[in-house]
Amino acid sequence: MSAFSAVEVIRTKRDGGVLSDGQIDWVVDAYTRGQVADEQMSALAMAILLRGMSPAEIARWTAAMIASGERLDLSGVRRPTVDKHSTGGVGDKITLPLTPLVAACGAAVPQLSGRGLGHTGGTLDKLESIPGWRAALTNDEFIGQLQETGAVICAAGDHLAPADRKLYALRDVTGTVEAIPLIASSIMSKKIAEGTGALVLDVKVGSGAFMKSTDDARELARTMVDLGTAHGVRTVALLTEMSTPLGLAVGNAVEVTESVEVLAGGGPADVVRLTLALAREMLDAAGLPDVDPEPALRDGRAMDAWRAMVRAQGGDPDAPLPVAAETELVRADRDGYVAAVDAYGIGVAAWRLGAGRARKEDAVSPGAGVLLHKRPGDRVRAGEVLYELRADAPSRIPAARTAAEVAVTIADAAPVAPPLVIERIG
Amino acid sequence: MSAFSAVEVIRTKRDGGVLSDGQIDWVVDAYTRGQVADEQMSALAMAILLRGMSPAEIARWTAAMIASGERLDLSGVRRPTVDKHSTGGVGDKITLPLTPLVAACGAAVPQLSGRGLGHTGGTLDKLESIPGWRAALTNDEFIGQLQETGAVICAAGDHLAPADRKLYALRDVTGTVEAIPLIASSIMSKKIAEGTGALVLDVKVGSGAFMKSTDDARELARTMVDLGTAHGVRTVALLTEMSTPLGLAVGNAVEVTESVEVLAGGGPADVVRLTLALAREMLDAAGLPDVDPEPALRDGRAMDAWRAMVRAQGGDPDAPLPVAAETELVRADRDGYVAAVDAYGIGVAAWRLGAGRARKEDAVSPGAGVLLHKRPGDRVRAGEVLYELRADAPSRIPAARTAAEVAVTIADAAPVAPPLVIERIG
Repeated sequence: MSAFSAVEVIRTKRDGGVLSDGQIDWVVDAYTRGQVADEQMSALAMAILLRGMSPAEIARWTAAMIASGERLDLSGVRRPTVDKHSTGGVGDKITLPLTPLVAACGAAVPQLSGRGLGHTGGTLDKLESIPGWRAALTNDEFIGQLQETGAVICAAGDHLAPADRKLYALRDVTGTVEAIPLIASSIMSKKIAEGTGALVLDVKVGSGAFMKSTDDARELARTMVDLGTAHGVRTVALLTEMSTPLGLAVGNAVEVTESVEVLAGGGPADVVRLTLALAREMLDAAGLPDVDPEPALRDGRAMDAWRAMVRAQGGDPDAPLPVAAETELVRADRDGYVAAVDAYGIGVAAWRLGAGRARKEDAVSPGAGVLLHKRPGDRVRAGEVLYELRADAPSRIPAARTAAEVAVTIADAAPVAPPLVIERIG
Repeated sequence: MSAFSAVEVIRTKRDGGVLSDGQIDWVVDAYTRGQVADEQMSALAMAILLRGMSPAEIARWTAAMIASGERLDLSGVRRPTVDKHSTGGVGDKITLPLTPLVAACGAAVPQLSGRGLGHTGGTLDKLESIPGWRAALTNDEFIGQLQETGAVICAAGDHLAPADRKLYALRDVTGTVEAIPLIASSIMSKKIAEGTGALVLDVKVGSGAFMKSTDDARELARTMVDLGTAHGVRTVALLTEMSTPLGLAVGNAVEVTESVEVLAGGGPADVVRLTLALAREMLDAAGLPDVDPEPALRDGRAMDAWRAMVRAQGGDPDAPLPVAAETELVRADRDGYVAAVDAYGIGVAAWRLGAGRARKEDAVSPGAGVLLHKRPGDRVRAGEVLYELRADAPSRIPAARTAAEVAVTIADAAPVAPPLVIERIG
């Protein structure tokens, strides 16, 4: 007999109370072991969503999720370790150029990533469009590659925060995703368990992001920064703009191509700016505040690190990337300025084209996606191409076009561009 | 593909919205058929508990639960039908004398009852202490007995409101029992489906009741009266006092014995008073407002109806009832007046003695229970017996005595007795 009961724990939170350390440790552990049922945990998750959690409860909950699995020890890696996590956006391929760039500047980046679900893409899905590249590494391979190339992007194994893995799948089907305490503890339990010494959070705000308001994003960022700090991880967060897609490419292979352009010293200005801003924060958090990352994009060092990283995981950096069979060009029906390219609408369009998945078990189309030819503020003439839609089958185009047409608007005057980095929290 | 999704329904309620008729019909039906998972329904139940439901939502939810099974047709019964439901109390055996009393006065009482869980006893558990008596009847047996004797107390079959059966079991383990919309729709869906023409609700208030405050009890009563009325069932509710156990006996066989005393024209005054108050409401609701039930308790007609009802279900009304092997007498340690006999404490004591069950699959002890020798207001001298504890095994006594000792207090002055019937809602 346990001293705790699931119903008592649920009732405590339901009635607005504070869960004790013992209750939290017990319920997370018992749920992971299958002794608290899914229907009990989902009721508790709903109560947490509606009643909230104190900072102390969130900290304990996160610690319990970390304790449900192993915590990697990266102390043998000879460079300072620093990771980045994005809360997810449309066209957010920043991890791809950023990881090798920071590695090229002397830090080691142990990036454990996920797959996409819904309208925001997954970093692993994008990298898997590279022929031969594999996402699954053993712990030894992970640490070995980190040691040698300084850059790893791979899938988190089952051994890291298994409580979070189980709880995340449950929240997804029970309408309990949108709880800041649960989002923060989910992200931070995995990042702390992966063993990184420092962490930079890119918390997205806007239509294409999970957080629609700056206030919610700030609360999430503050909660995560406090959690990281409490666990000895130097943590800082940037709130960044996600009302417009990042760059011109939204999809999988098309985002890899754009990332390689950035690593070659080119690429869209906003992708380069955000990559450099996050690189500076990561180097600072890693104890390398005097290293300027910008030259590494121009002199080929970041590109070399990318190629080494891709090769180390079986990928061929020189292989042609998949191209979708169908392309439809969408043109402006009037003269003017592009007033808005709504990130959510473009995310939905890319998802409908096959770049994302509706269910976890679905496969993504590597070649599908949206390629913007114009961005907000660009002048456009009637008949000019605004964007192109790419898919494996023509049947996927019409619904995607419907979503994109609503997302892209033309006006007589250019819009005022919002700042890309809204706020720094650290 | 359904037009509805469980996550969308959950989110609507979670965010404080009103569920549409279509959403309610779909989610109740899909849950009954296993297409909405337990973990989704429990998250929805928690959202309903914390966000509430409008009267229209509660009405539709109740209708959907009724529609999940069959609705009995009692129109062939030649007498007017009227039922009673109590929300549960300690020593609440009123259904036992009340059902045959009202039948003896010319109405037919189709009483579908439940078993006890927790500190309040179940009517079926009490009747099962009568040798030979069986709770399970077919629909034809149920209607036939109602026709012939006017009185049936039996178990509700699987065919009535199966959605409620499934949802009730889920709520029990997920901390979502205490939601007035769900309590009201659970009770009323079964009572409406059973086919009664009229219904009197006994909504208990106090330490031994589910509802601790008069405000909560009034809200529940009003909700249920409105639901019954909307479905064409003449419905009225009494709010009644449940801070002190009803009568002197709390258990199973001991409550049958006390009920038979009432049917023989004796019994504790409070049990007689509440039985008559509820009988008058039932006869009034059944369209027999001029029938005075009191004489039927004195002239043997109610007793005859009891004996016929027990016999019709295989029971022997003359057989000796089970007696527990162990009895412990607890005596007053001082002179004074009994100041309080707390219903919750006595309920817990009876439960610990074996009269109730901790899990649905447990058996109850027919002979176990508490017999009060004194009630609040009674004068008592040091050394006089206050109450006795009965159990099948001596090991059950000490923990029960601990609960009872806290429940029974003696003071220098007699307390002011609260009214038994607090309020009438109809």
